[in-house]
Amino acid sequence: MQVGFIGLGAMGNAMANNLLKAGFALTVYNRTCAKADALVDKGADLAKTPAEAAQGEMVITMLADDAAVESAVFARDGVLEALSPSAIHISMSTISVALAERLTNAHRAKKQGFVSAPVFGRPEAAAAAKLYVVVAGVPEAVQRCLPLFDVLAQRSFVVGHEPPKANLVKLNGNFLIASVIEALGEAFALVGKAGIDRAQFLDVLTNTLFGAPIYKTYGGLISEERYHPAGFKAELGYKDIRLALAAAEALKVPMPLASLIATRLLTLIAQGEGHLDWAALAKLAAQEAGLGLASLEPVAPGQ
Amino acid sequence: MQVGFIGLGAMGNAMANNLLKAGFALTVYNRTCAKADALVDKGADLAKTPAEAAQGEMVITMLADDAAVESAVFARDGVLEALSPSAIHISMSTISVALAERLTNAHRAKKQGFVSAPVFGRPEAAAAAKLYVVVAGVPEAVQRCLPLFDVLAQRSFVVGHEPPKANLVKLNGNFLIASVIEALGEAFALVGKAGIDRAQFLDVLTNTLFGAPIYKTYGGLISEERYHPAGFKAELGYKDIRLALAAAEALKVPMPLASLIATRLLTLIAQGEGHLDWAALAKLAAQEAGLGLASLEPVAPGQ
Amino acid sequence: MQVGFIGLGAMGNAMANNLLKAGFALTVYNRTCAKADALVDKGADLAKTPAEAAQGEMVITMLADDAAVESAVFARDGVLEALSPSAIHISMSTISVALAERLTNAHRAKKQGFVSAPVFGRPEAAAAAKLYVVVAGVPEAVQRCLPLFDVLAQRSFVVGHEPPKANLVKLNGNFLIASVIEALGEAFALVGKAGIDRAQFLDVLTNTLFGAPIYKTYGGLISEERYHPAGFKAELGYKDIRLALAAAEALKVPMPLASLIATRLLTLIAQGEGHLDWAALAKLAAQEAGLGLASLEPVAPGQ
Amino acid sequence: MQVGFIGLGAMGNAMANNLLKAGFALTVYNRTCAKADALVDKGADLAKTPAEAAQGEMVITMLADDAAVESAVFARDGVLEALSPSAIHISMSTISVALAERLTNAHRAKKQGFVSAPVFGRPEAAAAAKLYVVVAGVPEAVQRCLPLFDVLAQRSFVVGHEPPKANLVKLNGNFLIASVIEALGEAFALVGKAGIDRAQFLDVLTNTLFGAPIYKTYGGLISEERYHPAGFKAELGYKDIRLALAAAEALKVPMPLASLIATRLLTLIAQGEGHLDWAALAKLAAQEAGLGLASLEPVAPGQ
Repeated sequence: MQVGFIGLGAMGNAMANNLLKAGFALTVYNRTCAKADALVDKGADLAKTPAEAAQGEMVITMLADDAAVESAVFARDGVLEALSPSAIHISMSTISVALAERLTNAHRAKKQGFVSAPVFGRPEAAAAAKLYVVVAGVPEAVQRCLPLFDVLAQRSFVVGHEPPKANLVKLNGNFLIASVIEALGEAFALVGKAGIDRAQFLDVLTNTLFGAPIYKTYGGLISEERYHPAGFKAELGYKDIRLALAAAEALKVPMPLASLIATRLLTLIAQGEGHLDWAALAKLAAQEAGLGLASLEPVAPGQ
Repeated sequence: MQVGFIGLGAMGNAMANNLLKAGFALTVYNRTCAKADALVDKGADLAKTPAEAAQGEMVITMLADDAAVESAVFARDGVLEALSPSAIHISMSTISVALAERLTNAHRAKKQGFVSAPVFGRPEAAAAAKLYVVVAGVPEAVQRCLPLFDVLAQRSFVVGHEPPKANLVKLNGNFLIASVIEALGEAFALVGKAGIDRAQFLDVLTNTLFGAPIYKTYGGLISEERYHPAGFKAELGYKDIRLALAAAEALKVPMPLASLIATRLLTLIAQGEGHLDWAALAKLAAQEAGLGLASLEPVAPGQ
Repeated sequence: MQVGFIGLGAMGNAMANNLLKAGFALTVYNRTCAKADALVDKGADLAKTPAEAAQGEMVITMLADDAAVESAVFARDGVLEALSPSAIHISMSTISVALAERLTNAHRAKKQGFVSAPVFGRPEAAAAAKLYVVVAGVPEAVQRCLPLFDVLAQRSFVVGHEPPKANLVKLNGNFLIASVIEALGEAFALVGKAGIDRAQFLDVLTNTLFGAPIYKTYGGLISEERYHPAGFKAELGYKDIRLALAAAEALKVPMPLASLIATRLLTLIAQGEGHLDWAALAKLAAQEAGLGLASLEPVAPGQ
Repeated sequence: MQVGFIGLGAMGNAMANNLLKAGFALTVYNRTCAKADALVDKGADLAKTPAEAAQGEMVITMLADDAAVESAVFARDGVLEALSPSAIHISMSTISVALAERLTNAHRAKKQGFVSAPVFGRPEAAAAAKLYVVVAGVPEAVQRCLPLFDVLAQRSFVVGHEPPKANLVKLNGNFLIASVIEALGEAFALVGKAGIDRAQFLDVLTNTLFGAPIYKTYGGLISEERYHPAGFKAELGYKDIRLALAAAEALKVPMPLASLIATRLLTLIAQGEGHLDWAALAKLAAQEAGLGLASLEPVAPGQ
């Protein structure tokens, strides 16, 4: 099957690679084409425009944000004008619900297929084909995409017929992750100032009620204060929480905890730390508690 | 070994029962003695005062709150005046860090042993001997208690030499549980108003990054809106979050999320719903979103 | 002097009326022209498009929101294409800082004058020429506008050379008003549940440290629970607080209190009360405290 | 009339001085008696215990906190055991509602009079006899105290028959002050980062809707960043907001804004700045916005 792939960042590159390995005929596009070199060496065709990548049966977009997707789809030489009516645009980027609605309508008007399929997972998971895909779209179109998701992910979840619903679930998931980080950040600040061993505390959590990947991953980062290099930057986290809040605003759903987290991520960014992993919400909590201020630090080593 | 057990509520009864079954010689005390009947039938001795229950090598307190523990320990005919210097008081109730400090000092002054060992788990877990125990105390005393915890729990975690540290870890754990509930509550309100199937959404969560008992338990309650009868009442949850905040205040640790949760639990209580399970934080989120208001409900059945 | 006036809502009508009375030659435009009738009877000319209203030396826009201003300025037959280079567009609506920046650049590119001059005051103040105007723009342009503001307002404040600064000050002012309302709302809920006379409490406030118009106005509304008809609707208040937060986001300024207020206004709206005066934040606080729930109301009449 | 005065801090000293000048026969007590010297020179008698100060018709307590009042009243040689049944204890300190209730009951049990009369005003206002007194108590007792308040204050407000109501009003007032500070802090951070002149912004506020003493006082401190020396320390502010929240908890009144302020004052304290004026909430807002971080400061001098 002929598949286009637009967006070769850390995530996209790993995903495109898996599709190639699985035998798909891939046409790849990236704004800066150097990133495509390794894929082309392995047999992918290079497209000079998004439109060129959209000649086949399916085209995947895996881009950084709304603006990048808008540009790849709606601009001249974009996906929208090139895609044939029988073909499907699979949007796997984390984008706003509003943009997903606009894409749904634009493709429907052209009788093109459109499926929203954002993913959970960091670049390592993408490389290992261990992503989770959240899918929504017209059932027949979704059906055609599933074999492709099987190559990229350990599991796919179909959550509805209207594509934007998948984006809402994805953004909501990112909100839940951020809320775990914020809670852990405050808990570790308290534990740290009480002189309790941080690793021991994490051990209690992950071996009792909190034995989920999310607590292991973020608990580990926070316990060891590893905020750099970022797996997912605070400034991107802020963007996603704002998108969740925008969706909530449109549906008139007040989310006080999500608002709190947005404010705290913005604080990190305003203090010049937006490039750190969003686990650095825990750094903010520690700072606010006066931890790390030498003059205030009462806790002896080893305590 | 001769063990006293003070406090025969749903938790204490199940725990005392397990100790009896394991062959410990048990002397039990409860303020209203009817609750002790079944245990006495199975071979436990009945104490008429906390002091009588504190004649053996160890005495466990498993009571509802600070006031109950203070009364059982410090009052006339209480544990403190009766316990022999070689014996150990094991405090398993969820109490304040401040009271744990007071108990530590009082027992030390009398050269009595004192170990803090609060537990995670609901009555079902207590009955099944599947609790988790968080333990802190002088190592030699802790060592003597471990065989007892092995009877009650699936695992024990020793977190320090100073008893109050175990209480801090326990309260912090309850804060983390509450933060999961609040986050899920807001997420389900958003998902619900968007017309996404709630069970499907929960399925996505618990099969991806959030595969921990806590998400399964509370996600299930919230998804099905089962807030009554309460496994753990909102008013008790409020009490525990306030104890966590009191410990944080004493250590000068600002906890904005914990404060948010306290305010929201108080809102539930003020509206006459403090008897519901604390998962009802999700009911509050749904109400605030206008869900359940017939005149506002735009979502067709089946969506 | 020939002046155009676009936007004849409650505010605009009163302002245009004052300009007419002061002898200005007025050309008025409103999307639904019936609202212009009374002004035309008093001597105003009627424009059929915003462009027609923008033929003179100055044109004022006083519209409901960003969308209305964008449409009046940037659309075909809009202000931008009609205004002569020597003329000035005076934007008096409460709009976003981002739109004020866009207007600044668009008019500058056409060598047209542009002054931002949003106002504080309700329709009664507009009618009585008791508004306050916050002004920013190139000094020479501002100078030319001042005589006009003298007709409309009791006082003008020039806050800078760049027009968007006036909009930021205006939005910030609305945030300060909302924060007074929220604080009063919580305070009155506490006082009310304690059985203290509300009018007496307000009397203490306004005769001691809080003797400002804002406390008198909103304290009166809250004390007497007069939320309908709205002087300024909760849904408009929400819009303005969101604009303040958008400006803060652009400048990277976390505003936790503004975020809290936005969440609470959205709660009002989600519950179908967005049409009430934004003083109804106090209604929300009272509800959350369980006031007005008959079964919970413990306070005897007369207390 | 024979009056006792207990507590000669900055406030108490100024108040006692005014009573002396007005011709009252004063017996003064302070824990460290050096503070009484100047008053004794002017004719006051020196008491060696609170009981000695409580021999006359009335005794005023003006102390730092609950603990100080409890000690002066309930300890051996305290007010309670010494006061004659016809005499009145006037509590003017800012204390908890719970302590006011305890005092009410204790004095009633001894058939002594008790009036709560906390004040608004800083030491300068106390010296100038420009305080405001909020009074509650049995009418006949209140009546007897009024001449005394006339000497100390520019105005007295009687808010009820039960003494604790006055304390609630006072704490609520302090909450309202803190909410003004927090709002101004956020507003000034936004204005500052936008490059708007701070003094000019304050000028707009205090000459329009916010023309109250509270905005002038705190707006001035914040605009000029004068947080030291403190007129009222952040740590005392924290104590009072916590007392307001404790009263709200007892009455089951959620106060989200008050909770937010408590968290932020605790943050100041945790960072070693509890000795600054509580206007330093604005310093926190500025820091969070990245203001004052040299590397981030984009605003040119003079802007």
